[in-house]
Amino acid sequence: MIRKLMDAIREKQAPVVVGLDPSLSFVPHFLLEEAAKEFEAPLEIAAEAVWRFNRALIDAVADIVPAVKPQIAMYEQFGIPGLAVYKKTIDYSHEKGLLVIADVKRGDIGSTSLAYAAAHLGKVAVGEEKAAPFDADFATVNPYLGIDGIQPFLDVCNEHDRGIFVLVKTSNPSSGEFQDRLLDNGKHLYEEVGEKVSAWGLTSMDGSYSNVGAVVGATYPEEAARLRSLMPHTFILAPGYGAQGAAAADLKSFFDANGEGAIVNSSRGIIAAYKKPAYASCGEKGFADAARAAAQDMVRDLRSVL
Amino acid sequence: MIRKLMDAIREKQAPVVVGLDPSLSFVPHFLLEEAAKEFEAPLEIAAEAVWRFNRALIDAVADIVPAVKPQIAMYEQFGIPGLAVYKKTIDYSHEKGLLVIADVKRGDIGSTSLAYAAAHLGKVAVGEEKAAPFDADFATVNPYLGIDGIQPFLDVCNEHDRGIFVLVKTSNPSSGEFQDRLLDNGKHLYEEVGEKVSAWGLTSMDGSYSNVGAVVGATYPEEAARLRSLMPHTFILAPGYGAQGAAAADLKSFFDANGEGAIVNSSRGIIAAYKKPAYASCGEKGFADAARAAAQDMVRDLRSVL
Repeated sequence: MIRKLMDAIREKQAPVVVGLDPSLSFVPHFLLEEAAKEFEAPLEIAAEAVWRFNRALIDAVADIVPAVKPQIAMYEQFGIPGLAVYKKTIDYSHEKGLLVIADVKRGDIGSTSLAYAAAHLGKVAVGEEKAAPFDADFATVNPYLGIDGIQPFLDVCNEHDRGIFVLVKTSNPSSGEFQDRLLDNGKHLYEEVGEKVSAWGLTSMDGSYSNVGAVVGATYPEEAARLRSLMPHTFILAPGYGAQGAAAADLKSFFDANGEGAIVNSSRGIIAAYKKPAYASCGEKGFADAARAAAQDMVRDLRSVL
Repeated sequence: MIRKLMDAIREKQAPVVVGLDPSLSFVPHFLLEEAAKEFEAPLEIAAEAVWRFNRALIDAVADIVPAVKPQIAMYEQFGIPGLAVYKKTIDYSHEKGLLVIADVKRGDIGSTSLAYAAAHLGKVAVGEEKAAPFDADFATVNPYLGIDGIQPFLDVCNEHDRGIFVLVKTSNPSSGEFQDRLLDNGKHLYEEVGEKVSAWGLTSMDGSYSNVGAVVGATYPEEAARLRSLMPHTFILAPGYGAQGAAAADLKSFFDANGEGAIVNSSRGIIAAYKKPAYASCGEKGFADAARAAAQDMVRDLRSVL
């Protein structure tokens, strides 16, 4: 699967993934008003507005980026109607030729991770039938429980040609609270996790990179440089560009010598671009045009340093 | 909220939570057959069978235990129909007077954890309206991202009188891969996390214990003894009794001097008791009676060491 992602990046010349994280504060007000004409319950109104928002965003960026990354929390917060829109968003993205990174950050004991892996990337058997519940291409996974919680995802990667990104060094300000702690072997915890992710990845190679990737926050370029060399065949998903503070110059260290091996996520910087002075001329109704322009600017910005 | 849980444990004299983890291998075959008469799609058949299974289990144990713990992965694996049954299970448990611990193990950057906290424990605002998407009493939370990922849950605990259990030392065989690593200060990572959880908990005290609890696997009694003394006001949720290998004698160290401060989970040992020789006389159709008997035996077993 990682090869499919790398091919799509090469084809579109865009190591960029659009984060579909539809916090209601990003959704134009007129979409909520339209949804409120059709639905009564608050969660259904919100879900419908999010769906209209996502559909237009996907239409606007499908030909210029290789992938989208819906953050499931933003759908879970609208309960069952929200999760139904999460699923519709995955399906619609696939229809439009986009790969889908499910940002679910799941991770649990073995038997439970098996259920999560089947839910998000694989299939479940019910009697003689099989069904793919969410059917994303990649999922993000939390490593705190060790290999037990990862192995079922590795198995699904190999059986169904999917990929995962394991949290190694996250983009948030307090990520160092545990991840930067020094171990008795002189390594930081994130380095130790990175080395394990690299080793786990050897069991699911797909070309020069592995289907087992790593999440490394764009906000931590020095740590990324270290991890890039510790994990030579580990593809990096880098969130934190734009709104979280990282700039293109910070991102060079995430890529390999060929300018490959990483994809950078932006969420609100693209999907809520219409609120920024630079794209305000699009107006609220032109939110999708603003998103397209912001995505193009981000692609240009990254290309300038690669 | 932790006080409500402690009162319910005292009232029922049962520091036991029933894990509603309906892997299809635990669901009696006749329930799947019944569901298949009403539904055609595999995920809907599975979800309906799980719902009938849960409803009977809840009816069977509601008067003898204080709480249930649905593991959301086991519902997510059946997609939207599965998650709808997850929600119905929470609501039905509440109707029957049970507290609900949502075993979701969520955790993300701040803005995302805020959405998860609202989804599972709090409310979301849509225009002038507010709705409680899943409305559980407690949720389990992953600490790998540090305080940013925890703070939104703390805020929801204080605003809506809810509780969380942060993963400290998990029950699975490979939990030591990262959690047992020695830090340069001579502490194990799980001890460091435990001390942080204890400190975070001071911001949400509810009687002698905090609404911020910890997950400590019943399979690790020595680590639990250490954590019990490091976290004097942190309530412990202990999974791993029975099927995962822990016995009552192992659990004494999880409790305080008054025999309080912890609750022990059993999932398949109770919900799939009808498959064990000791309860086989109940038969498949008597799965709920078997579950009740197994829960009573577990309560008796734990009382014998407290």
